Amino acid sequence: VEALVVRPGDPPQVAFEAEYPTPQAPPGEVLIRVHVTGICATDLEIVCGYMRFAGVLGHEFVGTVVDGPAELRGERVVGEINCPCRQCATCQRGQFHHCPHRSVLGIVSRDGAFAEFLTLPAANCHRVPPGITDEQAVFVEPLAAAAHVLDAVPVSSDTRATVIGSGRLGLLVAQVLAHRTRHLVVLGRNPATLRLCQSWGIAAQHSDETTPAADQDIVVECTGRPAGLRRAMELCRPTGTIVLKSTYAEPAGIDLAPIVIHEQRVIGSRCGDFSAALRLLSDGAVRVDELVSRRFPLSEGVAALTAAAQPTNVKVLLCPRAA
Amino acid sequence: VEALVVRPGDPPQVAFEAEYPTPQAPPGEVLIRVHVTGICATDLEIVCGYMRFAGVLGHEFVGTVVDGPAELRGERVVGEINCPCRQCATCQRGQFHHCPHRSVLGIVSRDGAFAEFLTLPAANCHRVPPGITDEQAVFVEPLAAAAHVLDAVPVSSDTRATVIGSGRLGLLVAQVLAHRTRHLVVLGRNPATLRLCQSWGIAAQHSDETTPAADQDIVVECTGRPAGLRRAMELCRPTGTIVLKSTYAEPAGIDLAPIVIHEQRVIGSRCGDFSAALRLLSDGAVRVDELVSRRFPLSEGVAALTAAAQPTNVKVLLCPRAA
Repeated sequence: VEALVVRPGDPPQVAFEAEYPTPQAPPGEVLIRVHVTGICATDLEIVCGYMRFAGVLGHEFVGTVVDGPAELRGERVVGEINCPCRQCATCQRGQFHHCPHRSVLGIVSRDGAFAEFLTLPAANCHRVPPGITDEQAVFVEPLAAAAHVLDAVPVSSDTRATVIGSGRLGLLVAQVLAHRTRHLVVLGRNPATLRLCQSWGIAAQHSDETTPAADQDIVVECTGRPAGLRRAMELCRPTGTIVLKSTYAEPAGIDLAPIVIHEQRVIGSRCGDFSAALRLLSDGAVRVDELVSRRFPLSEGVAALTAAAQPTNVKVLLCPRAA
Repeated sequence: VEALVVRPGDPPQVAFEAEYPTPQAPPGEVLIRVHVTGICATDLEIVCGYMRFAGVLGHEFVGTVVDGPAELRGERVVGEINCPCRQCATCQRGQFHHCPHRSVLGIVSRDGAFAEFLTLPAANCHRVPPGITDEQAVFVEPLAAAAHVLDAVPVSSDTRATVIGSGRLGLLVAQVLAHRTRHLVVLGRNPATLRLCQSWGIAAQHSDETTPAADQDIVVECTGRPAGLRRAMELCRPTGTIVLKSTYAEPAGIDLAPIVIHEQRVIGSRCGDFSAALRLLSDGAVRVDELVSRRFPLSEGVAALTAAAQPTNVKVLLCPRAA
């Protein structure tokens, strides 16, 4: 079948392959025919060597279950990307997302979604209500991650919050926070996405045009660059909270003394609850249609990755041939 | 008067001066004759250029009030080091330790304690009960900072906690935590201080002899080195808490992606409550006598700083001539 495959190397090699083996669903898993997939910053990091991943790339998808338990067959689903062992001490505590033995779709030891078919544990699948289009459903995974910010830190109507980064993830985080507080500012470098925020009624400014006043209760770092954390430390008030949403391969090189001096809290935040994200889409509480910048067939996957790396593109979608 | 003074330079120059001007207490402040002072890692960082401080070094002290309000005159006191403006928005919120306009004794815009006399706001002074010796009272400031870990993160009898660093601060943090949990391990590099922990009934191991199992609920970083944070990230369980106690001038150069992946919390922790620390000393809950490695007269302050920089020395005390 068609697939966009990462082969080991330094840097790793990524290429479209037309005859990749068709995956077989082991017991407990389902086989899913992929409709649409989305490219995420993590995919771009993996291509640069992050996680030393080899295999089929991709983890944001919507598709139809074509093989598996009767109750799921024929259903349109999105899928949680962490596949835990469900037996270790971490899983016993219910921290499935943190199982040290887990595989992760298209990220750790498991072929991903940039292919005609993929397999996932049946327990990972969530049905997509009919009111949500395929191109919306592909945002469930990143939207779940965005909404997970609210699990890291309470946000009330008085909370002064800044989102740094007006890209793929920042635009989702901003929309989630905008439902909780009106004291929200998005800082970014892309005039188009800053205007998009403003069209949603969210204050947005160019990063270079702001003077950090160390008065924000919460700063969410969505730039994926060490400079973003440095800026977050300047914006955050003493004893405030910085939420780190993005991973990057490059080491930080940051003076962390201000975190101690200002007693700031830096909280890492990764994957979130799919049910919450599906609800946000069903309710129309978060707008994703405007985030789709370009669409590519899977066969042009390498060009799609290049396009996704350009800051002027927000979400780039990839569709396998069968879709 | 005698004083140990930092003069601007790159690196700054530190020297004993016999004829430094005698400080005058402005309204609201007291003049204190210094009995004993302690050298802290922050002092050593300042001498390397941290905070670009110039003036009299030192912030850990015990002394007698010789001028000021009648109710304090003649009293033996220790003093909180942050001197807030008490007027800005931060102070209005009660976050005096974080006042952006504050001076800090021997650290920011205020002459410090390595001198015969110092001045401090009267409100910063805490009387020392007679049962506490001068050489114990000098530990109130660092012990308050150590006990402040408990304000950053709850510790119960089930909490698995590791303290990294068996130096000045680590030994105090360890004793504070040992009253809350028996699942405590201290990691360090100095066999003498590791043995000291063991003599107190606290498990202690050489840092190189441990294999991080990512299973600690809390890790307190007290090494003052970027490698300590890296090690803390390896020891801390997913969604666990790392408390950063030490500041250092050098930038980190650390891959922070694991904080996001494991959703760890990194909390900066600085100064704490003097009353709590005085109680811990009065109750004999924390042992400090064994932490005093060497004593120097103030006139040998430069040699004392060199001694304090040697990892085999724990607390080095400095006594001005008058004491």
